[in-house]
Amino acid sequence: MSTFKITVAYDGAPFLGWQRQAGGTSVQGLIEDALRDLDDREVTVHGAGRTDAGVHALGQVASFVLVRDDITSDVVLRLLNAKLPPEVRVRTAERVPASFHARFSAKSKCYRYRVWNGEVLNPFERAYAWHVFGALDLEAMAESAQYVVGRHDFAAFETAGAGGPTERLIKRSTIIGDGAGLVTYEVEGNGFLRHMVRAIVGTLVEVGLGRQPPEWMRDAIESRDRARAGRNAPAHGLFLVSVDYGVVQSDPHVP
Amino acid sequence: MSTFKITVAYDGAPFLGWQRQAGGTSVQGLIEDALRDLDDREVTVHGAGRTDAGVHALGQVASFVLVRDDITSDVVLRLLNAKLPPEVRVRTAERVPASFHARFSAKSKCYRYRVWNGEVLNPFERAYAWHVFGALDLEAMAESAQYVVGRHDFAAFETAGAGGPTERLIKRSTIIGDGAGLVTYEVEGNGFLRHMVRAIVGTLVEVGLGRQPPEWMRDAIESRDRARAGRNAPAHGLFLVSVDYGVVQSDPHVP
Repeated sequence: MSTFKITVAYDGAPFLGWQRQAGGTSVQGLIEDALRDLDDREVTVHGAGRTDAGVHALGQVASFVLVRDDITSDVVLRLLNAKLPPEVRVRTAERVPASFHARFSAKSKCYRYRVWNGEVLNPFERAYAWHVFGALDLEAMAESAQYVVGRHDFAAFETAGAGGPTERLIKRSTIIGDGAGLVTYEVEGNGFLRHMVRAIVGTLVEVGLGRQPPEWMRDAIESRDRARAGRNAPAHGLFLVSVDYGVVQSDPHVP
Repeated sequence: MSTFKITVAYDGAPFLGWQRQAGGTSVQGLIEDALRDLDDREVTVHGAGRTDAGVHALGQVASFVLVRDDITSDVVLRLLNAKLPPEVRVRTAERVPASFHARFSAKSKCYRYRVWNGEVLNPFERAYAWHVFGALDLEAMAESAQYVVGRHDFAAFETAGAGGPTERLIKRSTIIGDGAGLVTYEVEGNGFLRHMVRAIVGTLVEVGLGRQPPEWMRDAIESRDRARAGRNAPAHGLFLVSVDYGVVQSDPHVP
């Protein structure tokens, strides 16, 4: 038995999301299908984050166990990339201790949301940024984004009905403008509720457009009421950038 | 009568190229169709460069004449973008003197070619870069690229049978590596033969892979023989970046 950790990049446009489900193609499903051939059995792949339909990843992390013990991480990387469509690429693969689990071992995650704020949409951004009309006030957005930092109950930013604890610790929440139309929001935290980043971005854009003051973010958080925050920004601007595990020891028995 | 100059960005993937032709969608055809509705007659659009199928543009320039005299450049920009698919965006529009012609008035053009040189293809680059396996020697490529600069007969880099004069003046020919897998070639000159940039890149990659010395470029140019240069690099890595006209006076009668 060998446990592997892989880092995966994917263009989310053609997929129903990370998680395997009936009625369409998922990234998890594609990887599991490829591993079934490799290990001659059903293999379950655990992802660090369940990205929604249309959401992209630069550094999604997944883990799985193979019964075959003669496969190097380099072979895992090459075989998976040979079987996966070009929209999904395994960037790295390594053998890790059996205790490693992509979801439960994760210490923090970083997401990026891209907004195109020029009058005319850059055609190369149409699938990777939300086109927001009207000049955004980046200073107001940056100020508002600071209210997200810290340990808060983010119930106001969770899509209704998900259940479970809603407290999360956010370490970083920043707005970066490139001066040429692209506005990027980056947020890093120990975990995120369903649609949480997209609801935060929807709130920040309301502030950026001057429809709400920066403190609206603080008030929305305190309200714990989904109706008091902005609407979810569209999926195609969101990227799961990276997942941090602290120090992961490589398995000393790497073949 | 009003003459307009527009700057156009497009993702070349879905198109047969710039030029209108039977059997598929072209960027010129889309713009002409949109202008026909605006001017109630057939309008001919002249592009600065006839990009091939699959080639992208950040700053293609086109010109055309409208009989209607009551249309501002701002209206031209908005109406075209309302009718064009999202893969094509008019970035700027301005009224110019009747003597302006996008092709004949052009002083120089700049093209960019993007090569992905990492082992694993970034999925977000799959439609915008040529994936070259094997580490490229960027110093050798940069040295080789210098042989392109100057006034030369580039017959060795023209797809056979095109005819016409083959001398061109190249002002700049540079290789830039971002240290993270992306290698960019930029070339600026007073004009380019059919497939010339792609043939230069195919030659540079042979040099980068160590199959030929940097001087192979000089020898290929001197030979004037297409068989002595590298093969055409694929279309999807190529971008028409900008077209320079020197100083273009805006029409003083801008409505």
